[in-house]
Amino acid sequence: MAPLSLLLSVLSVLSTIAAEYVEYDTSSHIIPGMINVHLVPHTHDDVGWLKTVDQYYVGSNNSIQGASVQNVLDSVVQALLSDKNRKFIYVEQAFFQRWWNQQSDAMKSIVKELISSGQLEFINGGMCMHDEATTHYIDMIDQTTLGHRFIKKEFNKIPRIGWQIDPFGHSAVQAYLLSTEVGFDALYFFRIDYQDKQNRKNLKNLETVWRGSKTFGSSSDIFTGIFPNSYEPPTGFHFEVNDKDPIVQDDIDLFDYNVQERVNDFVETAMAQANITRTNHIMWTMGTDFMYQYANTWFRQMDKLIHYVKKDGRVNALYSTPSIYTDAKYAANESWPLKTGDFFPYADQTNAYWTGYFTSRPSIKGYVRSLSAYYLASRQLEFLMGRIHSGFGTDSLADALAIAQHHDAVTGTEKQHVANDYAKRLAIGYAKAEKLVGLALASLSESSSNKNCQKPTTKFEQCLLLNITYCPASEVSISDGKSKAILVYNSIGWKREEIIRIPVSSEHFVVTDSDGRKIETQLLPIDDTSLGLRSYYVQAYLKKSPTSTPKFWLAFSVSVPPLGFSTYFISAAEKKGTESTISKLHKYHGNIDNIEIGQGNLKLSYNGAGILNQYFNNRSLVKEPVEQSYSYYTGDDGLGRDPQADGAYIFRPNGSFPISYPGQMAIEVMKGPILDEVHQSINPWIYQITRVYKEKEYAEIEFVIGPIPVADEIGKEITTQITTTMVTNKTFYTDSNGRDFIKRIRDYRSDWNMEVNQPAAGNYYPINLGVYIEDERTELSILVDRSVGGSSLIDGQIELMLHRRLLFDDSRGVGEALNETVCVDDECSGLRIQGKFYFRIDPLGEGAKWRRSFGQEIYSPLLLAFSEQDGNSWEKTHLTTFSAINPSYNLPKNVAIITLQTLEKNSSVLFRLAHLYEVGEDKDLSVMAQVHLRMLFNDKNISTIREMNLSANQERSAMEKKRLVWKSEDSNAEKGSRGSPVDSSKLIVELAPMEIRTFIIEFDDTAIYCS
Amino acid sequence: MAPLSLLLSVLSVLSTIAAEYVEYDTSSHIIPGMINVHLVPHTHDDVGWLKTVDQYYVGSNNSIQGASVQNVLDSVVQALLSDKNRKFIYVEQAFFQRWWNQQSDAMKSIVKELISSGQLEFINGGMCMHDEATTHYIDMIDQTTLGHRFIKKEFNKIPRIGWQIDPFGHSAVQAYLLSTEVGFDALYFFRIDYQDKQNRKNLKNLETVWRGSKTFGSSSDIFTGIFPNSYEPPTGFHFEVNDKDPIVQDDIDLFDYNVQERVNDFVETAMAQANITRTNHIMWTMGTDFMYQYANTWFRQMDKLIHYVKKDGRVNALYSTPSIYTDAKYAANESWPLKTGDFFPYADQTNAYWTGYFTSRPSIKGYVRSLSAYYLASRQLEFLMGRIHSGFGTDSLADALAIAQHHDAVTGTEKQHVANDYAKRLAIGYAKAEKLVGLALASLSESSSNKNCQKPTTKFEQCLLLNITYCPASEVSISDGKSKAILVYNSIGWKREEIIRIPVSSEHFVVTDSDGRKIETQLLPIDDTSLGLRSYYVQAYLKKSPTSTPKFWLAFSVSVPPLGFSTYFISAAEKKGTESTISKLHKYHGNIDNIEIGQGNLKLSYNGAGILNQYFNNRSLVKEPVEQSYSYYTGDDGLGRDPQADGAYIFRPNGSFPISYPGQMAIEVMKGPILDEVHQSINPWIYQITRVYKEKEYAEIEFVIGPIPVADEIGKEITTQITTTMVTNKTFYTDSNGRDFIKRIRDYRSDWNMEVNQPAAGNYYPINLGVYIEDERTELSILVDRSVGGSSLIDGQIELMLHRRLLFDDSRGVGEALNETVCVDDECSGLRIQGKFYFRIDPLGEGAKWRRSFGQEIYSPLLLAFSEQDGNSWEKTHLTTFSAINPSYNLPKNVAIITLQTLEKNSSVLFRLAHLYEVGEDKDLSVMAQVHLRMLFNDKNISTIREMNLSANQERSAMEKKRLVWKSEDSNAEKGSRGSPVDSSKLIVELAPMEIRTFIIEFDDTAIYCS
Repeated sequence: MAPLSLLLSVLSVLSTIAAEYVEYDTSSHIIPGMINVHLVPHTHDDVGWLKTVDQYYVGSNNSIQGASVQNVLDSVVQALLSDKNRKFIYVEQAFFQRWWNQQSDAMKSIVKELISSGQLEFINGGMCMHDEATTHYIDMIDQTTLGHRFIKKEFNKIPRIGWQIDPFGHSAVQAYLLSTEVGFDALYFFRIDYQDKQNRKNLKNLETVWRGSKTFGSSSDIFTGIFPNSYEPPTGFHFEVNDKDPIVQDDIDLFDYNVQERVNDFVETAMAQANITRTNHIMWTMGTDFMYQYANTWFRQMDKLIHYVKKDGRVNALYSTPSIYTDAKYAANESWPLKTGDFFPYADQTNAYWTGYFTSRPSIKGYVRSLSAYYLASRQLEFLMGRIHSGFGTDSLADALAIAQHHDAVTGTEKQHVANDYAKRLAIGYAKAEKLVGLALASLSESSSNKNCQKPTTKFEQCLLLNITYCPASEVSISDGKSKAILVYNSIGWKREEIIRIPVSSEHFVVTDSDGRKIETQLLPIDDTSLGLRSYYVQAYLKKSPTSTPKFWLAFSVSVPPLGFSTYFISAAEKKGTESTISKLHKYHGNIDNIEIGQGNLKLSYNGAGILNQYFNNRSLVKEPVEQSYSYYTGDDGLGRDPQADGAYIFRPNGSFPISYPGQMAIEVMKGPILDEVHQSINPWIYQITRVYKEKEYAEIEFVIGPIPVADEIGKEITTQITTTMVTNKTFYTDSNGRDFIKRIRDYRSDWNMEVNQPAAGNYYPINLGVYIEDERTELSILVDRSVGGSSLIDGQIELMLHRRLLFDDSRGVGEALNETVCVDDECSGLRIQGKFYFRIDPLGEGAKWRRSFGQEIYSPLLLAFSEQDGNSWEKTHLTTFSAINPSYNLPKNVAIITLQTLEKNSSVLFRLAHLYEVGEDKDLSVMAQVHLRMLFNDKNISTIREMNLSANQERSAMEKKRLVWKSEDSNAEKGSRGSPVDSSKLIVELAPMEIRTFIIEFDDTAIYCS
Repeated sequence: MAPLSLLLSVLSVLSTIAAEYVEYDTSSHIIPGMINVHLVPHTHDDVGWLKTVDQYYVGSNNSIQGASVQNVLDSVVQALLSDKNRKFIYVEQAFFQRWWNQQSDAMKSIVKELISSGQLEFINGGMCMHDEATTHYIDMIDQTTLGHRFIKKEFNKIPRIGWQIDPFGHSAVQAYLLSTEVGFDALYFFRIDYQDKQNRKNLKNLETVWRGSKTFGSSSDIFTGIFPNSYEPPTGFHFEVNDKDPIVQDDIDLFDYNVQERVNDFVETAMAQANITRTNHIMWTMGTDFMYQYANTWFRQMDKLIHYVKKDGRVNALYSTPSIYTDAKYAANESWPLKTGDFFPYADQTNAYWTGYFTSRPSIKGYVRSLSAYYLASRQLEFLMGRIHSGFGTDSLADALAIAQHHDAVTGTEKQHVANDYAKRLAIGYAKAEKLVGLALASLSESSSNKNCQKPTTKFEQCLLLNITYCPASEVSISDGKSKAILVYNSIGWKREEIIRIPVSSEHFVVTDSDGRKIETQLLPIDDTSLGLRSYYVQAYLKKSPTSTPKFWLAFSVSVPPLGFSTYFISAAEKKGTESTISKLHKYHGNIDNIEIGQGNLKLSYNGAGILNQYFNNRSLVKEPVEQSYSYYTGDDGLGRDPQADGAYIFRPNGSFPISYPGQMAIEVMKGPILDEVHQSINPWIYQITRVYKEKEYAEIEFVIGPIPVADEIGKEITTQITTTMVTNKTFYTDSNGRDFIKRIRDYRSDWNMEVNQPAAGNYYPINLGVYIEDERTELSILVDRSVGGSSLIDGQIELMLHRRLLFDDSRGVGEALNETVCVDDECSGLRIQGKFYFRIDPLGEGAKWRRSFGQEIYSPLLLAFSEQDGNSWEKTHLTTFSAINPSYNLPKNVAIITLQTLEKNSSVLFRLAHLYEVGEDKDLSVMAQVHLRMLFNDKNISTIREMNLSANQERSAMEKKRLVWKSEDSNAEKGSRGSPVDSSKLIVELAPMEIRTFIIEFDDTAIYCS
């Protein structure tokens, strides 16, 4: 420690440290009647982009980008301490938490004071600034909750402002759900279509009230501020270390004194902005990406500007935050213009539609989506078992998933090494959660016999790589006297009947259910494409060759109770003839007769060339000519007049070409009692399997695409089309973050008179749940397994972009071409993508039921766990079926449990229910739903239930009392209906259409189910 | 102010602020027996280079270079406060003073504590890190004194260490005068010849005892440390904001943890350095140009390295300073290798001799030299008049000159806009000093009649641009009844008889002396080259056309007392025949007979082609064939195999070509009673006037060179040669900073076996005073008016490089070609250089007298001031002659007053005397000299006289007691003789050869002479 005398001097000088001997007057506050320039000091810290999140935090790997968030936070704290008028906002909790963990207790109390006094304010407050196009609403909620609850717990603060300044377009769900329902008073960003922005400038409409929800009407309104240019400071006011803008040189003893010039610059810039802004308040975002590495450089200049602008007297400049700015806007008592719908797609120039990233890195997008569901399920299981503290659990996956929602993560717009880092974090998170899930399933299944249910003996294996036909647990041969138990967990609140498939090495199996009954099975020979994919990717990612090669997919039907599991057993067939049915196999090559598949209501027909040509449902009698095709766009190389290349962010095609097999397409059809499959080699690098399940009325299409050939040095984007003769009048519907469906009209924007420059790219929209079209009679719906881009570029047709491989950078900073490869022994080839989509045609008005309820099942697939057992003793030591829910109860098909998570204590639970339907979507299900908590929690004793805001950092009632209510041109619109407050004696939760309700429930005793 | 509770928390956390929760142990001290790695945190802040000094300070103009010294000092103070073990050194006082002036009192006391505790230490301590090749020792002393006295006064500290880390070669004067005599304990740098460095590494001789003075022998020894590579940190240990070297990632919770790798790197690097270093101590210079803009980035990493290296235990790392390091070296009690001579020239690669800058920007070099003398004279006059406080004086010139000594200022290696900035500062400084000089001369000359001598009525004009024939004061026509008083001031301590020349507009003048006696004059028609130069440069620099055009130079002899003035009067000739003699004019063009000039002892002969061919002195009977020629080098363009181009720093010729007039040289000879002139157009862009004064025995050559033609896209360097038949055996002598002459042997270095790669560039040396060669009979001396490069590349010949114009950058950072132009109305042409050199041939052993005593007169030319008067009343109201010295006294010809300067009070005076001769140089003058202060100060009452060290920040006796005495291979060598301590009753100062003695004299009453 320094000597006391020195410290005492420090004490007395803290307010002037690092300031000049001129005492700057930084105490300006809002002055009514003047132009008030709100200087908002901020840094925009990408949670991974060109560098990984940790590299950004510690400031390593600076050869890629000079950036250290540690510097930012260290130096901002110092700068705030030296002048109490200075303010700063911080956004990304993933970084803040890294920093916080490294601070001493003494520093922590200093920072708490800064936060308490409002000098340092958390804005947005999620772990990251999530993307809004390629994210699922459940992930958005989870990552926001993680950040908000940390802030609440550690600092007792509730962020007031949405600050989505960088994401590439803005979703309705962000507006009404992640802003209004969170309790934000305003939402700010800048990336909207350049035509829209110009129009809004002309109309002074950059600040608006945004009504994101049709269902909730004016109760979903959020004040929305769109920055006139970017989230950077105005030109000439960048003050990072080594920045080139002119500083304020106010030392008259030195050369280049320039106070008056700089004040003039300030006033002129402010007046120009004031001219396109309603009210007397304008905001300057004083910072940008990873700025404030030495915060003093900014604050020194802002101190001077505030000081000299005050002396000048033409405008007023003050240290501010978005909260202060928002309050000033509110106080103006204006009636704001109204915005509905969303801000997609985003274009920043004529040929620069940021619609490529809707599909970029489909593998990351798929990984994120499947782990999102796994995280949901694993938290349920953690709740059911009771939280244990043993180095594994769901926290790590929670963090990894939260970070993956960042607008340069799941978007696919990060550098390859950063994508690898996200994948690594997800893999580590999964591995820890997988252990927990295995343990929980073992505990729950052993719970009938085992008193100490958190230390079970049963070992479960799981198969993350089932999508590439790799499941060692199911592939092993089963010797005599042994069998394999397959536990099937259902994280949804209703009972499910589904077909599951696992790879097996031989055909000599029988499958029995929990009651020991032998059940029908079907064996489907595994095609060479799947086997090739399996062996290459196992080699690439696990660095080992699979020891055995499975021969069949074994398919059978399972029935699983809500929030629970069933168990199935595979054992060696004791005698010939008792084993599974092998699918009947038909191979076609060359001209063939029409083929029809489908053992149940749904029939698909293929023409002589092997092309799907008709869809027929025996029950609904829907019969539609339908074709499925593939095609590709060639990516613009940016070498033409407009240097805009097609890239990770931007979809800029320069041509579209149908894909047909060079020669005659090979087609294989497998038929059996459970499902029919059509296998097609569309071309040498697109393989497709179409499945129709006897008991289901949709078609499932599984594709393997890649390596996309680029030997011709042309990047390509692979699309598929489902084409009907429906008369759809340019109209189609895409979901917003997997939630609300929004009407899209081709070549049209409701907010302005659109000039069409990019007929394909400009009509692409993000799809997370699905897309549909309708005409007077029918509706065609497609549901997806991950985020993709799609459109309806021709009436009657839906197009999805499934994979992209591009050779040029599109000049938005990432500095790499989106050219994903996978390597084995240093030999690399283009990434292959395996994925699925589902389609179905319904009579008009009947499609929602499938899209919504089956959509939830796509999101939350059944979770499989395998265990070997000796003989048939399983039933004696294990529960074979389990449900957390009262056996007499099922959640209605319009409600999903989207969160069920133990908090710090086992008796305290975060619980969210979501109504899955919008108003008017379905005659049966678009109604008020009820959830009986006593049934749901099967008579566990609920001592208190508090309804919370969406991010669970405040009680909902408090939020509603506090939240600013904005006047708009249409303030008196309907507010939509919502469920009543929960009566704690009845414990029934009502959910109106689209309603999501969040609760913290305290149980009397521990909520552990295994006991 | 922040709330008290917050401040109290700050208090308790200061030692850990910005550090991680890990408490780093930074308390390491030297551990005997281990390798001790002294981490020396430093920043190297050029006082102007790519940006101006003020731009560097405030951090503006960052588009050229990101650099802000304000950031450095602000953030270093913060970083030092957070851990008392951290240390930092600061060097350049020009920056520190700028910062200091801006600080609050509270901050000042904090910084005083840091300095007092040794956490912040001033090293070197001059205003800048002066160059050592192109600087004059008087300027070096002045700028060091300015810094050192500030540090002493403000902080009561005395810098212990010389830190000349960046200058481009190192001078003997730096070693013995500006280090040992200043009281430094060691001197550190890194730029020595690459061959020398390799040799020293091999011999472990990078650290050595340097004996810079032949005269003072071992009493001039200084411990000298040469860094093995540069003044940067070792590779891999740069930690500025955004630097790319790997940081220590020690957070186990984050990816890329690398503590052991970094510790290994540290230990390996330390061991490698230890292997070429004597003793267990090695120094790491932790910083480089303008680093520590956010000091925390460096200290955070050093904290970690010290902490983890300590844990590792293989080596010891500690926060250190050069002082601590020096003490550790001293404590090792080694006997160090001995170095004599100097470290010129410097080459960093085979073809990269940094000898171009000896001549680069000859105009700046000339400006600095002439203002150096003006500053000396003006301080004398300020002393004589008494300091006044009225916004003008010598402080501004002192600052400007101090900054101009920087190793990228007078060197000519700065960007053009920065050269302009230095010139502007010098011009402002001159303007303020000029006012003071005018006032002082008026005061002193009016002092007989005016009681209030500081408010005189006489107005004096001075003529800074006399060198380009521009002097409005002398050019005006003198009407009947008026006359012009010319006051001639002599700043030297001995009486001078010289010829002065002023431009006049007509021939009808008579000149009278102080006694009214008409004196002999001579009129020399002004040549067209001079008039062209005059009109272009007046237009260019003063933005006006001269109103009149002078026709003649009016020359006459003046006689001026020591430290005093005489007055001369010009008035209109009353009748025909009384006016001045017009020189006889002979014009030659084409073949001519031999020409001889010289009315006195010296005769110069020219052959039929107009070429000088003989030198003859009638008195000494020296008669030598001598030729003078011009030639040029062509600059290498760096497009060959070695990309090294000729540039501002580096002299890399690729050819040498004689210059002869295309056709027949025109030659004009002017003869008269006072002097003869030979005018020669050497070629269309070199004009030369050779002057022989009747009463003087040297030749004066004035040249105008330029614009150097570069239309052929080849840069050129213009040289002149004086060639004799002397047998000089590769040997020549050049001065060190205008002081000691050092023997040079062509293609030879005494310290190592030299490999010759650049036969011209590798033999160039800096010349500030002069250069000479000698053989058995005679010696040829050339004296210069500014710093130039020169050599003797052929026996019997001396070559000077006078001007350079180059078209390529030489890749040492400045990023501009040295292509100086001057513009009028946006039309630019290459810079013309007007300058002089002087030569003389003496019998062997007799040259020093001229070189030394006349050399001092070249440095301190007579100062002219003009005033118009009505009639002949001047004598009635003015003193016409004045001397501060007792009329019976003269300083001996071997002593110069190099400082006479009023300090804070008029009664307190800084006073320096310099013996001008080395031991053995002259049989009469290389002896102990005596200066009688009572005579010198003409009976002003001296109350105390304290002998000081050279930079006057401590008493000499205290310095000698403190200073470390180093053991070397030759510790017992002679110490040279020095004058005895001054007996305050006798007040006689003895000066041994080469001795400079510094005093602070207090006078009883005010020392003002005008009264």
